[in-house]
Formats: sequence, structure tokens, C-alpha cells
Amino acid sequence: MTTGKINVSVENIFPLIKKFLYSDHEIFLRELISNGTDATLKLKHLTSIGEAKVEYGSPIIEIKIDKEGKKLHIIDQGLGMTADEVEKYINQVAFSGAEEFLDKYKDSAKDSGIIGHFGLGFYSAFMVAEKVEIITKSYKDEPAAHWTCDGSPEFTLEPADKTSRGTEIILHIADDSLEFLEEFKISGLLSKYNKFMPIPIKFGTKTQTLPKPEDAPEDYKPETIEVDNIVNNPNPAWTKQPTELSDADYKDFYHEMYPMQFEEPLFHIHLNVDYPFNLTGILYFPKLSGDLQIQKDKIQLYQNQVYVTDNVEGIVPEFLMMLRGVVDSPDIPLNVSRSGLQADGAVKKISNYITRKVADKLKSLFNENREDFEKKWNDIKIVLEYGMLSEDKFYEKAGAFVLYPTVDDTYFTLEELKEKIKEKQTDKDGKLVVLYAGNKEAQHSYIEIAKDKGYEVLLLDSPIISHLIQKIEGDNSGLHFVRVDSDHIDNLIKKEDAAISKLSDEEKESLKTVLETIVPKQTYTVQLEALDSEAAPFIITQPEFMRRMKEMSQTGGGGMFGMGNMPEMYNLVVNTNSDLATSILNNKDKSAQESLVKQALDLAKLSQNLLKGEALTAFVKRSFDLIK
Amino acid sequence: MTTGKINVSVENIFPLIKKFLYSDHEIFLRELISNGTDATLKLKHLTSIGEAKVEYGSPIIEIKIDKEGKKLHIIDQGLGMTADEVEKYINQVAFSGAEEFLDKYKDSAKDSGIIGHFGLGFYSAFMVAEKVEIITKSYKDEPAAHWTCDGSPEFTLEPADKTSRGTEIILHIADDSLEFLEEFKISGLLSKYNKFMPIPIKFGTKTQTLPKPEDAPEDYKPETIEVDNIVNNPNPAWTKQPTELSDADYKDFYHEMYPMQFEEPLFHIHLNVDYPFNLTGILYFPKLSGDLQIQKDKIQLYQNQVYVTDNVEGIVPEFLMMLRGVVDSPDIPLNVSRSGLQADGAVKKISNYITRKVADKLKSLFNENREDFEKKWNDIKIVLEYGMLSEDKFYEKAGAFVLYPTVDDTYFTLEELKEKIKEKQTDKDGKLVVLYAGNKEAQHSYIEIAKDKGYEVLLLDSPIISHLIQKIEGDNSGLHFVRVDSDHIDNLIKKEDAAISKLSDEEKESLKTVLETIVPKQTYTVQLEALDSEAAPFIITQPEFMRRMKEMSQTGGGGMFGMGNMPEMYNLVVNTNSDLATSILNNKDKSAQESLVKQALDLAKLSQNLLKGEALTAFVKRSFDLIK
Repeated sequence: MTTGKINVSVENIFPLIKKFLYSDHEIFLRELISNGTDATLKLKHLTSIGEAKVEYGSPIIEIKIDKEGKKLHIIDQGLGMTADEVEKYINQVAFSGAEEFLDKYKDSAKDSGIIGHFGLGFYSAFMVAEKVEIITKSYKDEPAAHWTCDGSPEFTLEPADKTSRGTEIILHIADDSLEFLEEFKISGLLSKYNKFMPIPIKFGTKTQTLPKPEDAPEDYKPETIEVDNIVNNPNPAWTKQPTELSDADYKDFYHEMYPMQFEEPLFHIHLNVDYPFNLTGILYFPKLSGDLQIQKDKIQLYQNQVYVTDNVEGIVPEFLMMLRGVVDSPDIPLNVSRSGLQADGAVKKISNYITRKVADKLKSLFNENREDFEKKWNDIKIVLEYGMLSEDKFYEKAGAFVLYPTVDDTYFTLEELKEKIKEKQTDKDGKLVVLYAGNKEAQHSYIEIAKDKGYEVLLLDSPIISHLIQKIEGDNSGLHFVRVDSDHIDNLIKKEDAAISKLSDEEKESLKTVLETIVPKQTYTVQLEALDSEAAPFIITQPEFMRRMKEMSQTGGGGMFGMGNMPEMYNLVVNTNSDLATSILNNKDKSAQESLVKQALDLAKLSQNLLKGEALTAFVKRSFDLIK
Repeated sequence: MTTGKINVSVENIFPLIKKFLYSDHEIFLRELISNGTDATLKLKHLTSIGEAKVEYGSPIIEIKIDKEGKKLHIIDQGLGMTADEVEKYINQVAFSGAEEFLDKYKDSAKDSGIIGHFGLGFYSAFMVAEKVEIITKSYKDEPAAHWTCDGSPEFTLEPADKTSRGTEIILHIADDSLEFLEEFKISGLLSKYNKFMPIPIKFGTKTQTLPKPEDAPEDYKPETIEVDNIVNNPNPAWTKQPTELSDADYKDFYHEMYPMQFEEPLFHIHLNVDYPFNLTGILYFPKLSGDLQIQKDKIQLYQNQVYVTDNVEGIVPEFLMMLRGVVDSPDIPLNVSRSGLQADGAVKKISNYITRKVADKLKSLFNENREDFEKKWNDIKIVLEYGMLSEDKFYEKAGAFVLYPTVDDTYFTLEELKEKIKEKQTDKDGKLVVLYAGNKEAQHSYIEIAKDKGYEVLLLDSPIISHLIQKIEGDNSGLHFVRVDSDHIDNLIKKEDAAISKLSDEEKESLKTVLETIVPKQTYTVQLEALDSEAAPFIITQPEFMRRMKEMSQTGGGGMFGMGNMPEMYNLVVNTNSDLATSILNNKDKSAQESLVKQALDLAKLSQNLLKGEALTAFVKRSFDLIK
């Protein structure tokens, strides 16, 4: 038996890097700036504990394009490296520099915010560069070093004359990557990955007008100077304490994150937890515009102020995906597969924490300013309703703030609603009946009839409302939701009063026979009702159960299999106490009787938005003839 | 100056692999099966050129789960390795085995289909395994070798007693990856990544009933045996020549790729090109179901029968993304960023080739069986129309097969249409006017009026039709599209005939004044027209230009900025020759006059689907009162 050490030959490191990093060549810039940030924060730490006897100052990181020379420079003012350290960190143990440092300074480094995650990235430079130079001067009193490598494993290392502390990386951009010499490209990358990194990043200069001196002469011309163009905000709002921030600060940060969003966010939720995991962030409820465009401005995931991804699946609960903002946590494992992520205990804890914080915030917003909360209801309801359906923990808390608006814009919690309608809307069997409409315009006549009885009618118009109603009924025995056009109102909330019919049983039978020969059987079931003589003579209703099952089946999940494709079935409710019923019954002219029934059916169809196409054209022509 | 070789220390290879591969741990199985396939195809090649003096036979690759022992076995019957080769390929130059082989056998290997892309993947085993064993016996007459490594750089290598040719990899699955010991999980991975790999893959066994012998006794009981369960199809349809395949074969392959699709595809396009790039594949036009669900069954990209991704952005032109099928090309660079992909010349050529092939296929389908093509038109039009808008090359070819259906289901090409309507629909200024409707039901009365004049009315109901019309008008001077409800028909196609008005100019002025006091000005512009006395007295129209710009602005791109949010504006066309116009004019009772106008306006609104909510309820109530 032989034993030995696996020896990964040096020839293979570059193809390996190119291979495994292919999907995102552009991240090289994030990696190199992260290294520079790292080196700067390390210096800060060493000076703070007295290990480095130099002035920390106000270091920045500079990015420079040399288009003619096809070079990109990344210059930091951090720790720097001695020639020995280059040998050790770049040539020998490139991939463990950060870990080794952390090991050594573990305890004191813990809270200094050193970025350890992207330390491996130096070699990503070779994804875009055919040759890489490092010119570096350590904070220690040693000469500067100049390292060069052209992507083959051979490197050169020689002394350099750099006198200022820090490291300059020079990338000789390869011909297939010349896009990285374009200013707009680098600008775009800095904005995507480095917008909130903790060290100021300079990219070019900009012109600034000097303030007018007090003793300026009358013909004073404004003076301008060139100043550093700092492209990042090293202290983004989420790294601060909520007590340091005003409402305006939160809004400003929203627009800083999403410069193309002109609408103000509805409200924010500041996330801030140390234990059992570390997570900060700010989530915003955006004002969702009507058109459901593909959502570009998503929640962004950071680790120690370095942008990681805008795919927060698994980390942020699904129902909150429509929110915007930032989550920053070093504790989210990046090296887990998507299915692994869902099973990961730490991630599950984070997701639960976010759910809980959102619910708590909604509760306090509701309690502190109910009027304002009601105004925002329409913009947030879809998120909350979806949350109630998908997260049991959220559903449990939702009773305290989820609202049920009426068609007249009164907002009730479920408990308030029950209390309000208890007296009038309890039927003879003790069921408490909640009436709702899905569309104020389309169901106008039905809503009016219900309101005339003194009933409350809710306006529930979310696409997933059928599912939610089904769930709420399941959890509240004796509570029933019915849409206002699902039957005649006196059948929806049955009372003890016996209905008095003008027509005898025989006349009713005779009327029904007449109607059933004229009204198409496959779509309408004739239903005679003795109603108020002033009520509409014909109305079309659609039973609640069938319609709800159909809707649930159409909006995915629930309902009954295949019901989404069943034909629509309606009831034709005919008021036997109406004058029209009598007219129809007593009309001896068969053809006039038929016209009367058809006209009445057309009118009932109009009220239910069912009169269309050829039938509508004929109806309109007939009606014009009537008035000419 | 020092020079030297970069020495990547061995301690770092495992964290490196874990880091860069994190997003998809599951690909380890694809990598290991690819290696096995590679080793088998290499052996095939060596035997075919006489370099290996062994029987190639019918090798398979076997996957075995040992749940109790927490082990996963991948066993091939390929080349195998000697102890020296393990030392060389696994311990020393793990990452260049395939390249080295290719270099050596370059020319003869060229066409043998050797997979070179995934050779680096052996170490991906350590993403899921805490210990990996290799037991391997070369085709050469040398003893088998047994290599073991527990994820630290130390390995052991000793002789083994394996006698059959090939390599067995044993993964000792780590505790955080136990999902990979589940049969359904491995089944799922094999189906996702290995479904069409060129060597048969065995995963377990299945029961097969033996055929009944001819001399079976009467009480013969069917006999069953256990046979290998082969999970892949090593010879998928796209690797064959179109001449070898029947229509049924193409359909079978569609269902093999998409087992959850029950609808037959409409037609297929076989891609097959050698030069200047190598690409094979089959694309299908699916029957798109009405509900635009998130599309799961996408086009899949393969390289030499190994699944790569279902993200074909950039490779397949955007307008064909809704198609299904497979594209297999070793010439698509995987190591380019997404923005690089769009600029890549090879990729652009591939995309252009696909566009051209699709256009050619559509043209031949149209020419060979126009009736069938017309039947499929509604299912394919959205793809073709989007193609015309987004790809100029496709637009140029589209004239030959793109259809314009009428509301009566007659299908014209643009040239046929022009010819057909030339005589009747050329207006007095020589403009050729194409009438169209967006919805047969909603615009029924307008369509009828146009048809009564003997005009053709197209039914153009795609969401992007406004954009397409705009483009077609731009390329066909003198051709104008107008929606059938955008003005009165006699204004849409103006003829020389002078209109004769019953009313004097004075009467008209007086009628207009009456109407304008009653009809709401902010929505309707009153427009008096001397039309046929039998024509509708009031109709509501919406001018073409404004409506089209609004629609274009709403469906994204084009139109005019901000027009999407402008209020709807209509014209109220009043027929001065109608009896109703006279009645209104001569009615001296102001209140009766107003009722008359309002009823007529309501009827016109009904025809244009504009009467809703409270106004509709009042209209229906009024109309019931009229007939009771």
C-alpha cells in the first residue's frame, strides 16, 4: 500500500478557474475590490489593537481605466504585502490567506467586519486578463514588490519603487474581454456589486462648484474644482440602528437602491438580529403598479455589505418575494444546493424570523395609525392574503391586522365584521352569512339589492380570494361566505318570514312550464321565488359552491380536479310576485309571450354581463326601434 | 528578479471545489457518469483503431445505492486505469486527462464523439462524499488498483482483486447529503442530466414477463424474470437523420422529452448542420394552452448528448423561446458571460441558422398543406408575429406564410388580402383600407355594419398586434389598418358619393346644440353624419390613432410616452337621417328630449361595452318597467 498527497499540478489552475467561474466573468471586479477592502479593514483592525504602528487615515480604493494601454487598475491603501508575503499568499497559499489571518486574530477580529468570504477571488483576474501585475508596499518597513504573471504558471517577482502603502493590481485586459475597458461597463459593475461596500471607492473625478466667498466681487464667476468621484455609500442605512434613522432616511435609501422607482414605498421593516444568527436589512412594501410586469427590482442579498445575489429564494418566505430591500447576513450558507437550502436549519430560522418581524410590524402599523393602514390596504392585501395561505405562522398572527373592506370602503377585522353583522346576517339556522362582491361595477345591481336590506357587502377582489375564503370558513365554524350574485338575497340569508305568493301553486306550475320551453335549459335552471313585488322580475344567479370550486381550480391548487373547464351553470330566479310574471302568465298570444320572456331574460343577462355579440346587437337594434 | 512556478497548495483544492460548485451540488452525478461514458467511448475508439486488443462488447454504466452502508456506486466497463494511471490522472494531473488524451489521438478521435467538456469533474464527488474510493482494472494486462481518499489530501493506493475491466467509483455519502441515497432523488437526476447519454445506464432491475411459448400448456402461467432497468435512451431522435424518422417517431420523442405534456406538438423542425458549426436538434411548435402559466418545459441544450441547461437565452432567438425540444452543439461556448454570449460571433451564427430553418419550415408547411397550416394558425401566430417584430431576417421571409384571418375564418396572406379588397376597399384618395376587429363578440355590431357593405373584416386579436400593424403600414405605403369601431364605416372608407342629409344645416346646428348639452363633453365628441336612414341612430367610435398609440404604450415599447395612462376618448356618431334624430330635434318637451338622448346614448354604450355599474342597473330597471 502506498500513501501520498494529492498533488494538483500547477498547469491546471487557470483552466480550472475559467471553467468553474464561466457563468459570471464580471465578478472579477467584485473579488478584487473585496480583497482591497479586506486589506484595508485588516489594517484598520491592526492599528486599532496597536499591532500596526502606522496612521490609518482615510483610505479609499481607486479604480482606473487605461483604455489605450488596455489596462484596468485596482488600487487600495490597505495592509500591502512584503515580497515574502507575496510569495506566501499569492504563489503558495493563495486560497487560504483570509482564513489564516482569521485564525491568528480570531477573537479580536471577530467584530471588526473583516470580509472573509471572497478571499479566494484573486485568481478570477485571469478570467478577463492575459497578464496580471501586483505592485505592493507593506505597512511594514520593507521594500515594495512587483509580481507579474501572464496566465502561465511562471511568475516574476522583483523589487519595486512604490512608496505609498497598499496594493495596486494591474489587469492587462485580454482581447475577448475588452468590454471591461468601457467606462459605462465598469460603472455598471461598481453599481451592481460595490454600491454599499464599507471603503469609499473612487472611479474618476467630477467637477464641483466652490461655494461663493462672502467677500466675492460683483462680477464673481463660480469657481470649479475636480474632486474624487466616490461611487459607493460606505455606510448604507441598514448598517445603522433604527433609532438613528428618520422616515425620510428610509425613503432616501429606497431610492438609492432603486433609482428607477419613482413611487414612494408604503412602509419599511428594519431587520436587526444578533442571535442565534446575524442578520440586518431593511424590507420595503412597494406600491405595486397595476400591470404585473416582470419584477426587476428585487430584494438583494448581501454579506458584510458585499452584493451576493438577488435570488433570495428560500431565505425570504415566498409570500414576501414581491417586497424590495436588502438582507445582509454572513450566516446564510452559500455552498448549499437549492433543495438543500430549504432543508437547512439556519435558513429556516432566518425565514421564520423575517415572517415574524413582518407580522409584528404590520400589527404595530395597524395599531398606531389604523386610518393610514386602511389607505394602504389595497396595495398590500395580495401579499398578506398570499401569506395567510402559505405560512401558518403568519396566518395565526394575521387576525390582528388583516382587513375586510366593504363596497363602501369601511374596513373591518374579521372579529369586528362578525360583531357588526351578527344581528342582521344570522340566518334562521344560526349560520352567520358574510356577503361579498368580486367587482363593484359588474355586480352593481346585486350589491344594491343586498344593501337595500341593510346588509354589509364586502369587496373581495384578489385573484386568490376563493382559496382564502375556503380556509377562513374551515377555521370559523358557522361562518359562511357567499357572493352577492350567488342566489336571490332572501335565499342567501334565509329568515323565518314565510313568503306570500300572489300566484297559486297551479299558476306557478303553469308559469314554470312556459318559461322552461323558452329559456335554454342547458345554461339556466328556472327557480320561482315569491319576492317583493317591486324586486327585479328576472335575475340570474350562479351558485356559490360551484363557482368557488371553479375559481380555485383555475387559480391553481385546491378546488376539484377538472372543474376549471366545466361549463358555466346559472339559475334564473323569477319573481312570481312581479307584475311581469303575471303578464307573462296571462299573455294568450304565444309569440308575444315568447318576446316578453326573451326580453326579460336579455335584461337579466345584461345585469350579469352575459349579453354579448349577436344577441347584444339584436337587443340594441330592438331597443332603438322601440324609442324612434 | 526571481522567477518561479505558482504552487497551489494541496490543502486548498477541496474548499475551492466546494466554493465554486456550490450552486449545483447535484451535478456530481452527471460529472461521474460523463467520466464513465468518456472512458467507455475511449475504449470503443481504441478498439476501432486497433490500439486496444480487447472485445468492446456492449458495455453499460451501472448506478447502485447502498442505503445501509451510505454508499453510492458508479460502475463503468470502459478503459479502466492501471495503478500508474491513477497516480497520473487522479493524483497528479487530474484536470487534464481528457485534454491529454485528445491531444494524443487528435485526428482519429475527432469524430468518435468523445466528451471532453466534463473531464474535470471527478473531484466534484467531494461535494457530497466524505470519502471516495476508486477500484479500477485497466484493459491492459495489469493488476487492478484501489484508491481511497477521505477529502484530506492524503490518499492510499493499493492493489485490488477486481477482475472485470472498468472503473467503480464508491462515494461514501456525507451526512449533509444523505438525500443522494434516495432512489427517487437519483432517478430524478438521471432523468434530468443523463436521459440521452450515449452509453446505456442501468439503475436497478425491473420485472419482465417472458413471451408465452408456442407449445404452452393450457394452464400456462406467465413467467417473469428480472432484467436490467436501463434509464436512458442512448440513441435519441435528434442524433438520427431526418430520413430515418417518421412523423410518429418525432411525436414519440416529444413525449419522451416532456412526459407531462399530453397534447401533440403542432409540428417539428429538425436541425442538422455540420459547417461552419456543428449543431443538431429538434424543435417543436407546441399547442400553447390558453392560460399563460410559467413555462416549465423549455428547450434543452445538450453537448454531445449530455444535458447542459434549459437556459438557451442568446442561442435560440427570443421569439422562439416558447418552442420546445432540444439543441445539441459542442460549438456553443459555455465559458462566456451572458452579455458576451450576445456578442459572440459563433452564437450569433447559430441563432441566425435557427431563425432561417424555422422560416423555411413554415414556408414549406404552408405550401404543402395550406389547409392544415390555417388550422394551426391560431396556435402559432403569437410566435410568428413576435418574430416579425423582433427579427428582421424573419420578417423578410414571413410574407410567404404569415396569415391574416377574417372574422369568417378565411385566411389571406398580405398579398392575397390586398388583391381581394383592392376594388371595394380603396378609398377616394387611393388609400387601401384594411378593416379589422380585435374581438368578434365585443365589436359584433360594428363588424355587421362593415360586412353589410361587402367589406372584409380581419380578426386580429394578438396582444402585440398594434405594434405589428404599425410596422406593416410603415413598409407598405398606401396601406392603412383601421379597427372597425374607430369611426363610422363611411368615414373609414370614404367614397365619392355625396351624402344627402334630411336635415338642413340650421337643423343640424340645433340638434348638435341639444346633444352637446346632454352628452358628457369630457368623454364624447358629438359628430353628426348623414347616413342611411336605416343605420343605427347613435354609435360610439374610438379613433384608430389614439387607441393604437395607447395600446402600443401599454404593451411596452413604441407608442408615445405616457399615452398608456391617458383617459379614454370617444366620438358619438349621430345619424342625422335616422328617425330618432328627427324625433329628438322635434321633441318640445325638454325632459322627454333628454330621456330620449340618454336612452339612445345608453344603447350606443351597450354596443361598445361601456354601460356598467350603476348606469347599467338603472338602464335595466327602466327597461323592465317598460315591458311589465
